[in-house]
Amino acid sequence: MTRTAPSDTKTVSDLDYAAIIQFYAGHIQLLDAGRAEEWAEQFTEDGVFAQNAKPGVKHGRAAIAAGMRKGIDALAERGLTRRHWFGMVTAEPAGPDVVRTRYYAVVFETPKGGEPRLYLSTTAEDVLERRDGNWLVRSRYISHDGAETITGIEAVAGAGA
Amino acid sequence: MTRTAPSDTKTVSDLDYAAIIQFYAGHIQLLDAGRAEEWAEQFTEDGVFAQNAKPGVKHGRAAIAAGMRKGIDALAERGLTRRHWFGMVTAEPAGPDVVRTRYYAVVFETPKGGEPRLYLSTTAEDVLERRDGNWLVRSRYISHDGAETITGIEAVAGAGA
Amino acid sequence: MTRTAPSDTKTVSDLDYAAIIQFYAGHIQLLDAGRAEEWAEQFTEDGVFAQNAKPGVKHGRAAIAAGMRKGIDALAERGLTRRHWFGMVTAEPAGPDVVRTRYYAVVFETPKGGEPRLYLSTTAEDVLERRDGNWLVRSRYISHDGAETITGIEAVAGAGA
Repeated sequence: MTRTAPSDTKTVSDLDYAAIIQFYAGHIQLLDAGRAEEWAEQFTEDGVFAQNAKPGVKHGRAAIAAGMRKGIDALAERGLTRRHWFGMVTAEPAGPDVVRTRYYAVVFETPKGGEPRLYLSTTAEDVLERRDGNWLVRSRYISHDGAETITGIEAVAGAGA
Repeated sequence: MTRTAPSDTKTVSDLDYAAIIQFYAGHIQLLDAGRAEEWAEQFTEDGVFAQNAKPGVKHGRAAIAAGMRKGIDALAERGLTRRHWFGMVTAEPAGPDVVRTRYYAVVFETPKGGEPRLYLSTTAEDVLERRDGNWLVRSRYISHDGAETITGIEAVAGAGA
Repeated sequence: MTRTAPSDTKTVSDLDYAAIIQFYAGHIQLLDAGRAEEWAEQFTEDGVFAQNAKPGVKHGRAAIAAGMRKGIDALAERGLTRRHWFGMVTAEPAGPDVVRTRYYAVVFETPKGGEPRLYLSTTAEDVLERRDGNWLVRSRYISHDGAETITGIEAVAGAGA
């Protein structure tokens, strides 16, 4: 499953890589469609979620869903459409059916009747787990480019592999 | 070929997913290279194309090519380079060798000697058909973020699976 | 490994395509992490690198690394974070374990404490070589959208397949 690249990067198999990219696409479409609860179901029961620019860590699907629901409803009230793009995904095996990913994520935002803009550029680190052929997020840490770090990545490390 | 994800999303095989992503890359490069006629050849003979923000539906390769040719020539006259990016592609089986995709598309635009800008953010829905190992677009519906819907997706539904 | 598409595009196998996308993700993360020397190790020993908007061609890993190191250090001094995104990658076989790619690349830039912006939109053409399962860049030519061409693609053509 792994091999050593010049930079000592380990990679997953080509098939697993395609599967992870496909998972992220569906995952992010749920979020941008405002389906926060279904999106949160794609975390493990005890999944964790944190961001460098915000205080605190969300623990478990209910807390993750509730936090995102609040943000989504606020956007809807303001008439804003946001699209998250994940890209440049690296994936490293971290145990049987466990993968550690690192990727970029940007957010494009369009107001009703207005022009789109680049709202945010970030990097993110996930620990993913495959269960019965489906991927789930054990932990996610998002680091906003240009922002001060209020919550460090060690806040989610316990959930890692 | 399919499996049930937590959100009840169906997915294509990992290999088919990679094939579809590769297809879209070549497809979009044809468009941005101004090769509207070759791009339209990647629709089925009776393919349909519509956008929420514009009236009417294009039926068949000739009409699809002609509409795009007009837009491309107008951009060239204004000295603008546009790059379409497709991303966050979900793909769901919809019959033998038929796949329904949903994805995001953004357009970056650069004037001659000037700065690039984000021109447009959209979502899109295609029905794709595989014929002799090649993918073709049966129908495409593009929904501009933030825009009023003049033409609804039902306008292309007849071409779906 | 190849097949003829309507537009006469040749493509690599679905597995090779996934492998190339995975390679590019790690490759670009090295660059944006400021690891110019490791990034340059992913070129062949005699790799070449050129851009339309800049004079000259870099030959070999040391020159490629040195040029990038200078740019990275200048950005760090200005407190800027840049993220390169590669996308819309087409890949065409060009010999045993040699692939010619063409893709889009954009750069998003965020100042410390500030808002992100789209800094650059480009197209790029690589010749890649697979050695012991790892991909290496034989040549890369980047063409900035909207820019005058100072250095043409023929400057790197000798390194092609």
